[in-house]
Amino acid sequence: MLSTLYKFPFAFAIVYYGVIPLGYLTKWWTTDDKMKGNSTILVTGGAGYVGSHTVVELLNNNYSVIAIDNLVNCYSNGQNEKPESLKRVEKITGETVTFYNVDIRDREALDKIFKLHKIDSVIHFAALKAVGESVQIPLTYYQNNIAGSSTLFEVMAKNGVKSLVFSSSATVYGNPQFLPITEEHPTGQGCTNPYGKTKYFVEEILKDVCASDADWKVVLLRYFNPVGAHESGLIGEDPSGVPNNLMPYISQVAVGRREKLTVFGSDYRTPDGTGVRDYIHISDLAVGHLKALEKMLDPSFASWKAYNLGTGRGYSVLEMVKAFAEASGKQIKYELAARREGDVAACYADATLAKNELNWTATRDIKDMCKDTWKWQKTNPKGFQKS
Amino acid sequence: MLSTLYKFPFAFAIVYYGVIPLGYLTKWWTTDDKMKGNSTILVTGGAGYVGSHTVVELLNNNYSVIAIDNLVNCYSNGQNEKPESLKRVEKITGETVTFYNVDIRDREALDKIFKLHKIDSVIHFAALKAVGESVQIPLTYYQNNIAGSSTLFEVMAKNGVKSLVFSSSATVYGNPQFLPITEEHPTGQGCTNPYGKTKYFVEEILKDVCASDADWKVVLLRYFNPVGAHESGLIGEDPSGVPNNLMPYISQVAVGRREKLTVFGSDYRTPDGTGVRDYIHISDLAVGHLKALEKMLDPSFASWKAYNLGTGRGYSVLEMVKAFAEASGKQIKYELAARREGDVAACYADATLAKNELNWTATRDIKDMCKDTWKWQKTNPKGFQKS
Repeated sequence: MLSTLYKFPFAFAIVYYGVIPLGYLTKWWTTDDKMKGNSTILVTGGAGYVGSHTVVELLNNNYSVIAIDNLVNCYSNGQNEKPESLKRVEKITGETVTFYNVDIRDREALDKIFKLHKIDSVIHFAALKAVGESVQIPLTYYQNNIAGSSTLFEVMAKNGVKSLVFSSSATVYGNPQFLPITEEHPTGQGCTNPYGKTKYFVEEILKDVCASDADWKVVLLRYFNPVGAHESGLIGEDPSGVPNNLMPYISQVAVGRREKLTVFGSDYRTPDGTGVRDYIHISDLAVGHLKALEKMLDPSFASWKAYNLGTGRGYSVLEMVKAFAEASGKQIKYELAARREGDVAACYADATLAKNELNWTATRDIKDMCKDTWKWQKTNPKGFQKS
Repeated sequence: MLSTLYKFPFAFAIVYYGVIPLGYLTKWWTTDDKMKGNSTILVTGGAGYVGSHTVVELLNNNYSVIAIDNLVNCYSNGQNEKPESLKRVEKITGETVTFYNVDIRDREALDKIFKLHKIDSVIHFAALKAVGESVQIPLTYYQNNIAGSSTLFEVMAKNGVKSLVFSSSATVYGNPQFLPITEEHPTGQGCTNPYGKTKYFVEEILKDVCASDADWKVVLLRYFNPVGAHESGLIGEDPSGVPNNLMPYISQVAVGRREKLTVFGSDYRTPDGTGVRDYIHISDLAVGHLKALEKMLDPSFASWKAYNLGTGRGYSVLEMVKAFAEASGKQIKYELAARREGDVAACYADATLAKNELNWTATRDIKDMCKDTWKWQKTNPKGFQKS
């Protein structure tokens, strides 16, 4: 019935004008992006950790999704096959994700996708993200994250798609000058590693793009520390090699893949001496992207705006270890070690602006974060690779 | 006699080993970059204003030069012809410049040049540089200046060439927090336009590259306000369209191409109310690059170092107008107008570090700057285009 209604105007047009350009018909028959009634979102880095969880929320909320990824950081059975994370997303949602194995540095391939699909907005996750690695191979990070992003923005502008949600990070604030960190906190000062600088630079590039062309609408989402997994346990964080972040490390200790956790710094001026961070459940973070998309649709929204996505509450390393032990029923072996250069004592968000302007707030607590991480880890001890 | 000496080791090798790999011989016969006895320098943006004057100094000091340029900002009779500026350089020096019409974003073309020539160091000028235009088309600036530079650095590293002099700018200091500006002044804060940000970002990228690989040696040269022309009057600044900078504007008024100069801001807290800048003669600036190359050869030089290239003395707009009127014997019509957003009252260098460490100091004064600009302008009223 619905499809009949959709086809009616075209039938009418054929009768009335006699002929419809072939390209138009082809487009109509080959893509049904708009059939779902909501917008079509291009998600770069859609197979990654934050990407895949965001795609779940998009599909559950009636968006059509075109996901692209170069697969450097996610598991797939082959270069031409849909990555495992997106197959799982389809299992969770019962919806289909259109996927392309495309690198954002590949201008021609990007352009083809914009020509093939009627894309309304872009959520841009694609980036390299390992802090330590970025110090070792900075040019690779600048090429991927800066040159790649700027190529994506050029192709978007060329195709008239000028609304974007950018996956930024609290790392743009550098060493916090005050706590909790508001969006007014200076950015770019004391970003000590290339990864953090690429996030800051892309923010600056987007600000300049918005200043140059009033048609652009951009939301910069500054993530604090995303953890957890989808409640189904089907998707989650799947770092290659030794995890860079606390939570996957803890969970790999719990599941027996690593012997013990090393806690860097136990003499910080925090309640228990270990570093305090603002952990946020990945599904809450994902919902934040939908709220950002809705915000951009508001006619009053213009130019760019940055929002913190955090809970506003900090937890120490040892609090996380304890919570994870309780959720998993496993003992988490750890040792205390010296501070790591570049680490700060505490970092947590003032999340008021997102609450007031995006109508978004984190709803999942530390127990949910640990429980869902453990469910994912336990059922997928080797991540997406066939266990 | 010299060439016989040069060939001797090869002759000896042929006798001793019997055979020399063909590639080695070919290399020897087809390129004679090393014949001049000094290093071979790849100069990107070699046909531009600072580039061409630096090439003169390099050739006069026994360096071999490979110049590349994409010709977007300089006059050439055709895409495959050597740009007029470099023909004039050859006239001035009596030496030959190897030239390639290559864009620094073209990885394959760059790589070919590094394979074809034994390059010792790179002086990297190639960049878009119009502040106003950068606000209008920021992505073009980020692609050219950031993605292009990072591609160049990757190709250099791949070919084992890891010493570079980068054409940076005092604009990285933003609005001066103190005067005179030393190299210790914070950078990247309050860079208000994309052009300035690209200079700052490339500096940061190079710092990260040096931190990642101890083989890299980088000198960042922060120019104040380059003016003037080669004393021969054969080369000089040849802006396309309306000049962005004061000196070419004044000289075009003097030669009758423009009616009058607009002086933006006459109520600054400076002696005569107009903005004060540190103008530096282009030939002094060019010599600074040779000193930077020599500095990098010093075994004690490691990683990166930034140097201001300025005179350390500021002149106001009206002082420059007066000096130019005297040098040219022409009246310079001007009108006073409101301040321009983003302009600062005064900006001049502390040039002590370059004096102490590079053994460099500006030797040409404001009279030379005006006299040489006028000679260039008078004999080339339309720049490099056939008058």
